[in-house]
Amino acid sequence: MSKLERTIQAIEPLNEVAMHEAQQRLDNLTKPPGSLGVLEDVVKKIAGIIGKAALPQSMEKVIILMAGDHGVVAEGVSAFPQEVTPQMILNFANGGAAINVLAKHAGARLYMVDVGVAVDLPDLPGLDKRKIAYGTKNMAQGPAMTMEEAIAALEVGIDVVNALIDKGASFVAMGEMGIGNTTPSAALLSVLEGLPIEEAVGRGTGVNDEGLRRKITAINKALDVNRPNSEQPLDALVKVGGLEIAGLAGVVLGAAARRVPVMVDGFISGAAALVAVKMAPLAKHYLIGSHLSVEPGHRKMLDAMELKPTLMMDMRLGEGTGAALGMLMVDAAVKILNEMATFDDAGVSRE
Amino acid sequence: MSKLERTIQAIEPLNEVAMHEAQQRLDNLTKPPGSLGVLEDVVKKIAGIIGKAALPQSMEKVIILMAGDHGVVAEGVSAFPQEVTPQMILNFANGGAAINVLAKHAGARLYMVDVGVAVDLPDLPGLDKRKIAYGTKNMAQGPAMTMEEAIAALEVGIDVVNALIDKGASFVAMGEMGIGNTTPSAALLSVLEGLPIEEAVGRGTGVNDEGLRRKITAINKALDVNRPNSEQPLDALVKVGGLEIAGLAGVVLGAAARRVPVMVDGFISGAAALVAVKMAPLAKHYLIGSHLSVEPGHRKMLDAMELKPTLMMDMRLGEGTGAALGMLMVDAAVKILNEMATFDDAGVSRE
Repeated sequence: MSKLERTIQAIEPLNEVAMHEAQQRLDNLTKPPGSLGVLEDVVKKIAGIIGKAALPQSMEKVIILMAGDHGVVAEGVSAFPQEVTPQMILNFANGGAAINVLAKHAGARLYMVDVGVAVDLPDLPGLDKRKIAYGTKNMAQGPAMTMEEAIAALEVGIDVVNALIDKGASFVAMGEMGIGNTTPSAALLSVLEGLPIEEAVGRGTGVNDEGLRRKITAINKALDVNRPNSEQPLDALVKVGGLEIAGLAGVVLGAAARRVPVMVDGFISGAAALVAVKMAPLAKHYLIGSHLSVEPGHRKMLDAMELKPTLMMDMRLGEGTGAALGMLMVDAAVKILNEMATFDDAGVSRE
Repeated sequence: MSKLERTIQAIEPLNEVAMHEAQQRLDNLTKPPGSLGVLEDVVKKIAGIIGKAALPQSMEKVIILMAGDHGVVAEGVSAFPQEVTPQMILNFANGGAAINVLAKHAGARLYMVDVGVAVDLPDLPGLDKRKIAYGTKNMAQGPAMTMEEAIAALEVGIDVVNALIDKGASFVAMGEMGIGNTTPSAALLSVLEGLPIEEAVGRGTGVNDEGLRRKITAINKALDVNRPNSEQPLDALVKVGGLEIAGLAGVVLGAAARRVPVMVDGFISGAAALVAVKMAPLAKHYLIGSHLSVEPGHRKMLDAMELKPTLMMDMRLGEGTGAALGMLMVDAAVKILNEMATFDDAGVSRE
């Protein structure tokens, strides 16, 4: 059995006993039952994930940012040139990007992985070089990658997250960088959820009307040329996916297999999570929603995974920025359970 | 001119020059223009409020929690007995409530004010005793308070926020405690926005169907007996308001007059902000939205003030819990402006 198959097989359902116990603890705290809404749902979910209702005082948070390039940029699908992918990785390494600021704000470490950037990168602090290929091929003309590349990228994600968990990470978030990557993400959403392309595609980081038309045309071509099988997520990933998307799908599978919660970010991370959930339906329970992106297909993507976004920030940047903010909400939830007084402790009357 | 009138007169429009300069700074940062959505809107708003685009490295945050009781609880409008108001204040003083946990998480200080709790409270750490009355009268039978009491409570809010600003507070949030206080809040929303009572009222911290009917009946009675003038927010406040609501409206006016941003919490804080905005329309610009409460009238209340909620947490607890989480988002916005690299600094290509 391959590493990928072993990982998928290791994913188990949530621990219902721990969730029930967490619910009981929540109902003893000095607040009307259920009045903290999603914060209480998150507490229960994390208890179910880690398998105990006594949550840790704090979680070691890591944002795993996977980077890759996309041959489909030749179709004019992005507002930015491909050289921005490595430029932004340098910016991340220097601490100047939005994700650096928000990761620090959330108390999370940023861990970058080059799974498929189109150029060679220098050695940089915080960068793990695991390049599988110099970007994908243009999916409008043929498969984005080979099956071997897709599996290798998935296993990079599995390996990376396992190594981080071995070193103490207890809560991971998904982040990404890759000029053009909303196009494969929309293609995956369209294929895996049977959504018309027009409903799956959006303006990404900001293309104009013409750019939007080019994205739709490119995806149409890609589906036409490749005929991805909607019942086989790995086939869809090979034909219309991305290397960083595959890597992030591997992160989801690896974290779920180790019972570690995964914070989903926006549209690209969502596509990766969707691929993982289609490969291993139980992985869904290990995901926690963060923000709702401006990208119009994001809501349907989250619905498909039964994830509830809590942050409506109209963001469309990626990098893991929404997930970083979402981690602050999860920390709040954990602290509620750990630090609030019970009715008995506080001498407060119940209803 | 009274303190209240002087405060209202001192409220000025936002500084457009500072907002424009903040926009320019935002557009030079290494991200697609506008891609951080609400975080960018918040940066601009704060620049306009404080009157400069160079935002402080950090803001001194205080959550002002006003407490008061409500005679209308005699109509059976709450799931909890009135004794819970002082019990919860003790819980706040001991650090065991949700707001303590979330204020600490947000790096904010909690400042409690007794404006109208029905019983005498002991001296407690963090409690400012400014009681105007031992709760309101039952608004279903007559005015909730006198005009003198309403003005005194408003001026408590003005005094409290001014004293806090004098001591360094640069960002304040609204919080409240008062068993039964969603009922006057719904009445105020109904009167000031001309909303049918059924659309303004909700289950508060959790009444059942019968309790909901009692709330509607109580508000109907109160509007019938008192005939509050929808064009005169002070008249509405006197007749169907609350002492902590008046105090919080004073906080909004006082903060706006000093050009300090105010984080709005949920339904009760929203009602107080609405009263303030009706008294001084420019005060609207000094408000920042936090969460959207489960309370069905909250959306319309926020719309009336053109406030966009960013957190969809299904919370219905009050205390300032949503505002505390919202403060974390504002901190994130300020850090984005202060800490991100520009395109030139980072050598990243523009679109």
